[in-house]
Amino acid sequence: MENRLTSPIPSFLAPIQEDLQLVEQQILSELVNCRPQVLRMIQQTLFSGGKRIRPAIVLLVGNTLGGPKDELIRLAAAIELLHNATLIHDDLIDQAALRHHQPTIHTLCSPQLTVLIGDYLFAYAAKIAAEIDNPGTAKIFAETLITIVDGEITQYSDSRLKPDLSLYEKRIYQKTASLFEASASIAAGLCTTDPTIREAMRSFGNHVGMAFQMMDDVLDIIGTESILGKPVGSDLKQGLLNLPTILYLKDYPDSPYTNRILEGSCLKRDNSDVLQAIRESSAIAKSFEKIDQHLIASQKQLAVLPESSGRHYLLEMVNYLSRRIH
Amino acid sequence: MENRLTSPIPSFLAPIQEDLQLVEQQILSELVNCRPQVLRMIQQTLFSGGKRIRPAIVLLVGNTLGGPKDELIRLAAAIELLHNATLIHDDLIDQAALRHHQPTIHTLCSPQLTVLIGDYLFAYAAKIAAEIDNPGTAKIFAETLITIVDGEITQYSDSRLKPDLSLYEKRIYQKTASLFEASASIAAGLCTTDPTIREAMRSFGNHVGMAFQMMDDVLDIIGTESILGKPVGSDLKQGLLNLPTILYLKDYPDSPYTNRILEGSCLKRDNSDVLQAIRESSAIAKSFEKIDQHLIASQKQLAVLPESSGRHYLLEMVNYLSRRIH
Repeated sequence: MENRLTSPIPSFLAPIQEDLQLVEQQILSELVNCRPQVLRMIQQTLFSGGKRIRPAIVLLVGNTLGGPKDELIRLAAAIELLHNATLIHDDLIDQAALRHHQPTIHTLCSPQLTVLIGDYLFAYAAKIAAEIDNPGTAKIFAETLITIVDGEITQYSDSRLKPDLSLYEKRIYQKTASLFEASASIAAGLCTTDPTIREAMRSFGNHVGMAFQMMDDVLDIIGTESILGKPVGSDLKQGLLNLPTILYLKDYPDSPYTNRILEGSCLKRDNSDVLQAIRESSAIAKSFEKIDQHLIASQKQLAVLPESSGRHYLLEMVNYLSRRIH
Repeated sequence: MENRLTSPIPSFLAPIQEDLQLVEQQILSELVNCRPQVLRMIQQTLFSGGKRIRPAIVLLVGNTLGGPKDELIRLAAAIELLHNATLIHDDLIDQAALRHHQPTIHTLCSPQLTVLIGDYLFAYAAKIAAEIDNPGTAKIFAETLITIVDGEITQYSDSRLKPDLSLYEKRIYQKTASLFEASASIAAGLCTTDPTIREAMRSFGNHVGMAFQMMDDVLDIIGTESILGKPVGSDLKQGLLNLPTILYLKDYPDSPYTNRILEGSCLKRDNSDVLQAIRESSAIAKSFEKIDQHLIASQKQLAVLPESSGRHYLLEMVNYLSRRIH
């Protein structure tokens, strides 16, 4: 079994290692005037060992299309900052204690300061996006932020216990795939005016993002705390129906676990028996089927690109995502 | 005694009444897909009877310089949304209960939803700013957000009890004057490439904003709850040293009230005797002197504009601000 957190650097990241370091330098140089206490907490979140999949999409799509290096690095930095800003507010709202094995910011300081640190990263992300000399960048950027926040408001306000696949797909689009889509879409927009390529890259980002979140959902059921960097079964504990859980509920309407989940009895408690039942059910294989559908769809989009090392690495990324577990 | 909350529509707003209604329509049309529950709370904040001074600056500066009407209205809407987004997070952090006589959003829903509603308005403000066809707009916009949040982090993190005028001036620049400056500056940037006019308008906005906040500080001491829409003496209650208080502390180092203020004994309590002492001191007249210096400096900047009805209305605005109390 291989997974993204214990394996060596995936092959598709190797050619952009240097660029990813420039992305980190760009982020740090933006935050140079930040108060030391605040900077320490931001660094803890931003440099906690995430694989930088979103910046990698920006760089790989952009490099493949021969885009301007400096702007791609700044765009990748803006996307990563926006991602982290939403995580900081999200973890505060969900009272999550760990992310990537590290304590979340709201566990290190007051909720008030956590709100402000999130706002601060939004502001820096918006500044970098605005400085990129392309009229579409800041607009897609802001629209994606609207999509993400709208999703968070829905997730926070509505009952989480509706086992509805289309609501689920909308939710993970808003939460995750929209920013993958924006990463690929803005990168393509910086490099080409060809609408076919732009649309293919948008769709590529979308499908990769959907597969990525679905895989996260599966890992939340079948992973281990050391792989995840946070406890297993976090979704169920928060009352969130993730993909394997929804598929389980559909296939086992008469299971006692189905009742327990739907009546909200899994909130804030250990659910190892429920997780075990889902693990041993058909729901896992069916989840992988859905993931594979998105990965295949994403691969198809790459056909618009010229045969090149860049396209090869994007395909590698897709293959890597499909190998995260199975 | 005249004040902005009980007087009829000030004369400088009369020529832009229709435009200000278009600004409100623009805001509502942006938020059309918002959930009804959230929209109701946003409307309560956004339509609680504020005089729209920041949008008025955008429209008056822009009209005077013959700018594009549609873009000025969108810019004014973006500025008002950004302003309200920061207020929503600020009121949550300070646990303020009232603004413009209305309950603040965090008193109507959970802190979690309040964070998200603030984020939502940031996102819409950024979207409108990004849609304005001018490369400088989104950049100044994002930089202003950085300035405001940086100020909030400082105000939240540092001791508030330093009676230091230059720290005070930096704080009110970050909190208030920076957005006035951005309003005038971006409006001018949409209308002219002349650097003298742009710089004069930036400076005009800055001085008007400084005077506006200083006047708010004075009103917090000498006003009444019905004028302010919130309790008198809120700053002192929150441990914030406002302009008259700092000037009082300088002039009366041996007063027992000085001690009480500096040792933090005014926090979260009724301080009517302290307020009374400041009211009867030289600090009020000295505060007005400072306000007048900024208003005179702002008037001077208007000399770069051609003699026109627009310039006349901007002068009217300055005169109106100087008449808010005395």
